[in-house]
Amino acid sequence: MNDIPKTMRAVQLTNYDGRPESLTFTQNLPVPQPGPGQVLVRVAASPVNPSDLAFLMGMYGFKKPLPCVPGFEGSGTVVATGPGTVARFLKGKRIACTVADARIRGGMWAEYVVTTAAMCIPLGNNITMKQGAMMLVNPISAWAMVDEARRSEHKAIVQTAAASALGKMVVRLGKRFSLPVINIVRRAEQVQALREISAEYVLDSSTSDFDAKLKDLCQQLGATYGIDAVAGELTGRVMQAQPKGSRMFVYGGLSLKPSEVDAGSLIFEGKVLAGFWVSAWLARKNIVEKMRIAKKIQSLLATDLKSDVQAELPLHEAAKAIEQYMKHMSAGKVLIIP
Amino acid sequence: MNDIPKTMRAVQLTNYDGRPESLTFTQNLPVPQPGPGQVLVRVAASPVNPSDLAFLMGMYGFKKPLPCVPGFEGSGTVVATGPGTVARFLKGKRIACTVADARIRGGMWAEYVVTTAAMCIPLGNNITMKQGAMMLVNPISAWAMVDEARRSEHKAIVQTAAASALGKMVVRLGKRFSLPVINIVRRAEQVQALREISAEYVLDSSTSDFDAKLKDLCQQLGATYGIDAVAGELTGRVMQAQPKGSRMFVYGGLSLKPSEVDAGSLIFEGKVLAGFWVSAWLARKNIVEKMRIAKKIQSLLATDLKSDVQAELPLHEAAKAIEQYMKHMSAGKVLIIP
Repeated sequence: MNDIPKTMRAVQLTNYDGRPESLTFTQNLPVPQPGPGQVLVRVAASPVNPSDLAFLMGMYGFKKPLPCVPGFEGSGTVVATGPGTVARFLKGKRIACTVADARIRGGMWAEYVVTTAAMCIPLGNNITMKQGAMMLVNPISAWAMVDEARRSEHKAIVQTAAASALGKMVVRLGKRFSLPVINIVRRAEQVQALREISAEYVLDSSTSDFDAKLKDLCQQLGATYGIDAVAGELTGRVMQAQPKGSRMFVYGGLSLKPSEVDAGSLIFEGKVLAGFWVSAWLARKNIVEKMRIAKKIQSLLATDLKSDVQAELPLHEAAKAIEQYMKHMSAGKVLIIP
Repeated sequence: MNDIPKTMRAVQLTNYDGRPESLTFTQNLPVPQPGPGQVLVRVAASPVNPSDLAFLMGMYGFKKPLPCVPGFEGSGTVVATGPGTVARFLKGKRIACTVADARIRGGMWAEYVVTTAAMCIPLGNNITMKQGAMMLVNPISAWAMVDEARRSEHKAIVQTAAASALGKMVVRLGKRFSLPVINIVRRAEQVQALREISAEYVLDSSTSDFDAKLKDLCQQLGATYGIDAVAGELTGRVMQAQPKGSRMFVYGGLSLKPSEVDAGSLIFEGKVLAGFWVSAWLARKNIVEKMRIAKKIQSLLATDLKSDVQAELPLHEAAKAIEQYMKHMSAGKVLIIP
């Protein structure tokens, strides 16, 4: 470990209030040391995801003790390891990893991070560090949800926030597997963005005939599988449009409002509202399944599961990175490069 | 069929607007004739249930062509049958029956009704016509939901609208099966009503420390099974109080508002919101299971599954019966006696 410094530059979160001042930059945080089963990663790149925004506002599934380093996923090189076979196997390897786990103290928006070996995936030679940095949260979520829809033999998917990075991945995976996807966006320019990736069914929820058109399409295509990143009243509007016996999975709450569902949809139409959390989904998979998923994701990372990047910013501009991402969430990811 | 008149007295619904004027009384509606597999029942008694109120307002799972006779369940004597073994077997028998099915045109608030033999259950000698009239909707719903909770090995139940006829049945069944029930009511006098039937855990949602107390109790008892007849924001308040991985089943919408659930409960806590409809539940059971359930329900009809009656009114006072029931829903059932 002779080329590893004692201290590092890092972003630190001091308060879960979502204010820019609560995100500070420090030049001399101690570089963490890997324990048993853990690895020390020299971070190459890390995106700002909606789940990071939720975490900064204290609205994610857990909070870490403050101050803490935010940033849930990224890529880098394993430069040191603690005891353990899997950890040692990773030494020197280029990897993608996540720290979206309450038990992991550190975060990716730093020069170095310690995570558990189980949360690292070695990158193939054809995967760049920047691609690898955005490999876990969105691609696995998109893959997982489309995979669940196929396994449960749903005939079509209906999704909200369809112009997001994840939404576009769902569009492309739907095409690959001949599973029709009904895409709901909020603005006319997002309709255009989806047309550009050849999305077949796109509806703008701000138009007056939206509900009628949505119902027609959902019934006609049999869109019994719904995925929703918006919540609020949109959840129930989509559920009302879906056929009897449909399932709706909320995976984000961009509206910051509770999902609303009318009692009739639940009681008389047998519709079910649940959530989807990629961490919980992955935790249910065994190591062999995880390896297969990782391989599959990497094979699609340059095509179906690619993420557009709108900007790259250094660590000390993390607050600016977040501001830019929040202003133009459909324009592509903002990467933080230590 | 020589003692069956050609015409009958009946209540008729003319509009799904929920106004008293939309419920008319007629003296000379043709007595319907049973077709294959059907029976003609001389009606003895029929209650006003919340599901009837929902139907009158056009908010039930289906609408029947207007004008139609309302009234979903009741008791009576089979006085004639169409062709079919089961139908003929019922001839002359005292039965409980339901017409809560879009395919059945008639209703119980009349002197005679035609229903399918499959929707009739012969009454034991110890069951009065008045008890039998209230045997299907509430007792089977209460039985079904508690039975599902036991089968799925939930440690405790949390329920809203606990002072209703059905709510009290759930309290008594919980005691019978040593399954703790957390009861939520809206007013202080309802707390008292539940204490009188020895309910152990009763919370008044109008008190200031309701949410904190509810959370403590739900976590402590492991109330992962929720049943809700109110909907609106109460659904989500209860779900937030429940432990991770909980299920909530909405079976009524007394608040007339959509259920609200925060995205975090769904995504990070794996909670699921679904509906419960006794008709759909029964439709999933085969004939042997149905017979066993019917026997069980009758054996408990004088104790756990008993319904209090606050008033009995004749057919031509149906509008008054509904008014009285809506004013005092916790005071017991109102029976309509043709």
